[in-house]
Amino acid sequence: MADFPKTVHIVEEGPREGFQFERQAIPTARKIELIEALAETGLDTIQAVSFVDPRRVPGWADADAVAEGLTPRHGIAYTALWLNEKGLLRAIEHRDRLTLSGSISLCASETFMLRNQNRGFADNAAVQVRQIETCRAHGLPVPRLSVMAAFGCNFEGDVAVGKVLEVIASGMEIAAAQDVRVETIALADTMAWATPAHIRRLVGAVRERWPEPRISLHLHDTRGLGIADAYAGLEMGVDHFDASVAGLGGCPFAGHKGAAGNVCTEDLVFMCEEMGISTGVDLERLLEVARLAEEIVGHPLPGAVMHGGSLARYRRPSAA
Amino acid sequence: MADFPKTVHIVEEGPREGFQFERQAIPTARKIELIEALAETGLDTIQAVSFVDPRRVPGWADADAVAEGLTPRHGIAYTALWLNEKGLLRAIEHRDRLTLSGSISLCASETFMLRNQNRGFADNAAVQVRQIETCRAHGLPVPRLSVMAAFGCNFEGDVAVGKVLEVIASGMEIAAAQDVRVETIALADTMAWATPAHIRRLVGAVRERWPEPRISLHLHDTRGLGIADAYAGLEMGVDHFDASVAGLGGCPFAGHKGAAGNVCTEDLVFMCEEMGISTGVDLERLLEVARLAEEIVGHPLPGAVMHGGSLARYRRPSAA
Repeated sequence: MADFPKTVHIVEEGPREGFQFERQAIPTARKIELIEALAETGLDTIQAVSFVDPRRVPGWADADAVAEGLTPRHGIAYTALWLNEKGLLRAIEHRDRLTLSGSISLCASETFMLRNQNRGFADNAAVQVRQIETCRAHGLPVPRLSVMAAFGCNFEGDVAVGKVLEVIASGMEIAAAQDVRVETIALADTMAWATPAHIRRLVGAVRERWPEPRISLHLHDTRGLGIADAYAGLEMGVDHFDASVAGLGGCPFAGHKGAAGNVCTEDLVFMCEEMGISTGVDLERLLEVARLAEEIVGHPLPGAVMHGGSLARYRRPSAA
Repeated sequence: MADFPKTVHIVEEGPREGFQFERQAIPTARKIELIEALAETGLDTIQAVSFVDPRRVPGWADADAVAEGLTPRHGIAYTALWLNEKGLLRAIEHRDRLTLSGSISLCASETFMLRNQNRGFADNAAVQVRQIETCRAHGLPVPRLSVMAAFGCNFEGDVAVGKVLEVIASGMEIAAAQDVRVETIALADTMAWATPAHIRRLVGAVRERWPEPRISLHLHDTRGLGIADAYAGLEMGVDHFDASVAGLGGCPFAGHKGAAGNVCTEDLVFMCEEMGISTGVDLERLLEVARLAEEIVGHPLPGAVMHGGSLARYRRPSAA
């Protein structure tokens, strides 16, 4: 009835997503505190830093200080985001503590790409080629192709499945020309247009055309469907998700308000584990970190299980 | 790939659920205002009143005044909840404006039933028989069998599918003995234990054993899975859901805190309509009513689309 994976890998994006979105300044030490607490939960990949233009994203003006301040825990990959060559070169300066790999970064909406990355499709293709060259020069792999706005765009409207396939194909051409092997295709619902049925259609179409790469989903919960979208992904066998502790975050350039965060990590862990899908994460510890995140940002965050509680205490023998 | 229904019927339970749960007193006139606003959205069934013990549920001490104050709109069924004979008789006094029908009301957890209805299974069976007799004496149909705590219980823990089937079978025996035909089996996740996979298992097992009755789902979102659970129901062809505008409500006797409300009506409408499943509801009008609900209770409510916005404005020709 469903092609559930046995295990799921979650990339924690709460720090990167959250600190770019919060309006008030968060001290560097508290950012590091959250990242290090996340590393104690069983999550093994944490997108910890964002090397973006501090004039556009002031919340990440201290990216270098966060990277320098981290005490890496063995076995955890601390990753970073960048949107251009300059950001990549900044990230490379911290490669002793960060785990870096390149991505062919595309977008299904040129209008959104102009707002978010300040360039159109043609310019972007050239940027991606240069980044592959830079990665190669520094011995970094480029295992990933990602598509933002893969389900819809607040500026261009609905995005057809065929349009996403075209965009992926253009990235695959870059990969082939550069002799790069795409191991993962990441589909991002940047502006929260996806429905579970749409997830099934797009994942199915991508897998049919490119059966080899793993598919990864990056989901936003602005319209309440994030966890249902994740469930539809699980049904299609998707075993790789980005998620954000406590539902932190949102894209500052998406042009909408409201609960714009990513699908919430601990809610996703709860759903998976309750359905017998292993995540490797200690839910109870993660719930404590979600509450820490709420304390750090100083306002309620959208996570549900952190407020409603998990089911563990009701299952203790003494609970009956 | 999924057995989606073409249309879905939603029973709006926001007033009944919400006013039993809110801590502050809400003026009778504002309750009526919300109910009447809901009746303008395309929702055709609104659980408007709860005839329960005012000592246990003070929020509904004004049930008679709400029922009397309503100006019914043609074509809308205003329904009521009761938990015993006394409540049923109170409801019958308002049958000129309320649409009343009986239910064989069961629970998969005897411990929860003792807390919520103050009686065990044996006593409850006798109560159900008496209610059927009372309904019949007053010319009311009894088309429904409902099971609370059908997915798990904060007092008894996990609830096995087999246990729910036993409970339904006991209700079917009452129905047969009383010559009542069960048209709908309602499964309630009263304490938010369901996962989408569990929904599929239980709905599948119930339908296999009793193929005739329509299945209805009553879902709570305490742990963030309400809308994913609803999606799993849609995949199984379920076309009847209870939901609560803005996510109002929660059970005062469930023994938990947090965002305890029902699955949110407008989020469910949004998901269905975006997937091409018709609900008969005007989403934009319903979003206005959700914001009215938030204003009436005086604090933020958990609905997502009411805060994040629907997609309609992005699809207008001028939006591109």
